[in-house]
Amino acid sequence: MQTGSLQAGLPARPVVEEIFEVLVERPGLRIERIVSTGQTTPEGEWYDQERDEFVLLVAGAARLRIEGEAEDRALAEGDWVFLPAHCRHRVTWTRDDPPTIWLAIHC
Amino acid sequence: MQTGSLQAGLPARPVVEEIFEVLVERPGLRIERIVSTGQTTPEGEWYDQERDEFVLLVAGAARLRIEGEAEDRALAEGDWVFLPAHCRHRVTWTRDDPPTIWLAIHC
Repeated sequence: MQTGSLQAGLPARPVVEEIFEVLVERPGLRIERIVSTGQTTPEGEWYDQERDEFVLLVAGAARLRIEGEAEDRALAEGDWVFLPAHCRHRVTWTRDDPPTIWLAIHC
Repeated sequence: MQTGSLQAGLPARPVVEEIFEVLVERPGLRIERIVSTGQTTPEGEWYDQERDEFVLLVAGAARLRIEGEAEDRALAEGDWVFLPAHCRHRVTWTRDDPPTIWLAIHC
C-alpha cells in the first residue's frame, strides 16, 4: 500500500520549473501530482495528448484555454476537467504563492 | 469535455447516506466523488474490492483502518492512499460538518 500527501514537500516560494511527481504508474494509467508556481504553457503552444486526462485543481487557482473557445476557463479549488485525448488546451495562468496543486490522471 | 466541481452541491447539514457521484466511467476505470457526513463502515465489515483504488481526501478529515494494522490512519486534506485490490479496509470516522469529500479512482 502506498500513501502520501499532495500538500507535502511544497516549495516555500515560486520555483522556475513545474514539479511533476508520479504517484501511480502502470500500463494505461498514470496518476501524478503537479505543482505550479506561476508557470503557464508557452505562448502559441498547446498540449495535445495521446490519452484522456482527468485533472483536478486541488489547491490554488489557474486559468485554462481550450482550443476553439473564446475565453479562458477559471479554475478554483475542487474544479475538475475531463480532457479527451487530443483536446488541445493551454494553461494560461497559475497562482504562484502559495503554489497551485493539481492531481492529473492520464488514462 | 466534461467539467465540474467537487465542492458543488454539498449538503448543508449531515445526511443519512453517503453521496456517490460517478464523474468518469469506462471499462477498467471509474472516477467518483464521495461525500461523507459522519458515515463509517459498519462495525465488523470490511471493504474488499476487486479492483485497485486510489483515494484522495479532498476536504474534511477521516480515519481509515487497514486490516492487520494496530491503529487507524488519520487522513487530512491532501492525503492519498493507494489500496491494492483485496486490501481489506474500513472507514472508522469521517468529519460530518462541513462534509468530508473524497475523490476515488477505481482502476
